Amino acid sequence: MIKEITATELVPEKFIAEKVQDIQKAVGEGIAINALSGGVDSSVVTMIGHKALGHRLRTVFIENGLMREDEPARVASLFNSLGVQVEIIEARQEFFDALKGILDPEEKREAITQTFYKKVFGRIVKESGAKHLLQGTILTDVDETIAGIKRQHNVFEQLGIDPQEAFGYHILEPLIQLRKDGVRKAGMALGLPAEVFNRIPFPGPALAARVIGEVTPERIETVRKATVVVERLLKNQKAFQYLAILHEDRVTGMRHGKREFGHQIEVRCWDSLDARAATPTKLPFELLEQLALEITTQVPGIVSVTYNIASKPPSTIEVV
Amino acid sequence: MIKEITATELVPEKFIAEKVQDIQKAVGEGIAINALSGGVDSSVVTMIGHKALGHRLRTVFIENGLMREDEPARVASLFNSLGVQVEIIEARQEFFDALKGILDPEEKREAITQTFYKKVFGRIVKESGAKHLLQGTILTDVDETIAGIKRQHNVFEQLGIDPQEAFGYHILEPLIQLRKDGVRKAGMALGLPAEVFNRIPFPGPALAARVIGEVTPERIETVRKATVVVERLLKNQKAFQYLAILHEDRVTGMRHGKREFGHQIEVRCWDSLDARAATPTKLPFELLEQLALEITTQVPGIVSVTYNIASKPPSTIEVV
Repeated sequence: MIKEITATELVPEKFIAEKVQDIQKAVGEGIAINALSGGVDSSVVTMIGHKALGHRLRTVFIENGLMREDEPARVASLFNSLGVQVEIIEARQEFFDALKGILDPEEKREAITQTFYKKVFGRIVKESGAKHLLQGTILTDVDETIAGIKRQHNVFEQLGIDPQEAFGYHILEPLIQLRKDGVRKAGMALGLPAEVFNRIPFPGPALAARVIGEVTPERIETVRKATVVVERLLKNQKAFQYLAILHEDRVTGMRHGKREFGHQIEVRCWDSLDARAATPTKLPFELLEQLALEITTQVPGIVSVTYNIASKPPSTIEVV
Repeated sequence: MIKEITATELVPEKFIAEKVQDIQKAVGEGIAINALSGGVDSSVVTMIGHKALGHRLRTVFIENGLMREDEPARVASLFNSLGVQVEIIEARQEFFDALKGILDPEEKREAITQTFYKKVFGRIVKESGAKHLLQGTILTDVDETIAGIKRQHNVFEQLGIDPQEAFGYHILEPLIQLRKDGVRKAGMALGLPAEVFNRIPFPGPALAARVIGEVTPERIETVRKATVVVERLLKNQKAFQYLAILHEDRVTGMRHGKREFGHQIEVRCWDSLDARAATPTKLPFELLEQLALEITTQVPGIVSVTYNIASKPPSTIEVV
């Protein structure tokens, strides 16, 4: 049974000092490794781990080709400015190879998870010689695993490290007693800037979750360009989440007086408290028109743009 | 060279009397036939032809399975109330057989045209013994044929009647000097009710144009149900056109707490003067929410609803 620390109870400085000590004690003179995604949890773990181990924590950012425009460079540069070196691991080809020909959303997620753990991160862990792995698991993840919402993960098995060998490996989860609000409080005390906390929710499979049908470098580039427009135009709406989805259906369009079969981008912008129920944000019509205009002119191949008007349920926040 | 009669010049009573005489002179003691779609042009031709020939004009409405809810019955009953008998020809199976497996929009249109002319209407014309065919061609159709927008039609060839045999057939086009506004003026003088003129534009391939991907009876029934909701909720918006489109892409939804892969309906509502350029109608958000709520609850399999926000160009009014 894990003892929860609520955000109200949490005294960040004390909590951080304790976790730093725990990590130092566990790792000793060894080295540790962690994967940074740019999300709140992995960012806070990176900061605590760095405080504990300095250069003996190796922090990697895996460039899977599915991130948003400039995201790898932006995350690396933010942490550099905080004195933390982030190593960007080029793995685009491996992810796109694994995704080739897959149409089913579940298989897509599975291919990304497998490629991340078994192939790319597993290889890096083994090559690094690090025996300690830092992970940003929070209490909500544990609850969801127990409730069966997320699959139970044996991390080392996932990494392709066999149980015998795994004997020598240790996993450290310094945030496991906290929930999201506690993690934020700790992150602020660690000096992480507001942009880390104000980041809108972004799914694990990244832009692959924003493409209906096959995930290819070209289709990811299309939805990435649309995402730039959507995030820029909607960032001041105080919405819970906003996203662009590339559809697979072909629709008729016209350019320069000629028929052009093209594709459609769907924009979703959600009002929600906790993602369990959500309603489309009542955006001003001028803003919807601006979204459509910029997307059809700045994103090659897009001739049509729609705005989601259904609520969750029966819709869901993401499409895949 | 066809001499145009503008709507301003048109004296409807005089025009109708002349056309009635022309038809009587051409048909003599014989019989004539025409296909009524419920659109303005074919409705006006039906009324003029009936005035000229009474029961010697055979008016057929071809039930292709692609019309809107109750449309065949509604059209027949309207004309019955005006003293014109309309024969509904059951041809649903033939159209769905012709459309089976076709995904390309152009091939879809072609299959419908071929089935209409060569198979169904051609057979009826030949069986009827009628040698005179009344058609609602207007001057705009002629212009578009010359401009190459519509294909040049040899009607008898389309009907599968060979040129030798076609020698005995005659085509009568009483509206060929008029444009849409002139046709409306003539129609009003003929006593056609307002609903015929206020009918929003509806495409030749009917609901088949509102389905992305394969046209099946089930998919037509889905878009038909969505069309009922859209036409009912948007009829008072004074928009140029409004429509529901069934997408082929599968999207994730949730019902009763469980994941459900479903489909999406796209709603389009257009402001336009002449269909050459169009912008989405700025519908109140409450109405958009009502559309989504009714469609997701009343149309089986639909978990998501979007509203078109792109203009024409680069979009088009219909999707197929």
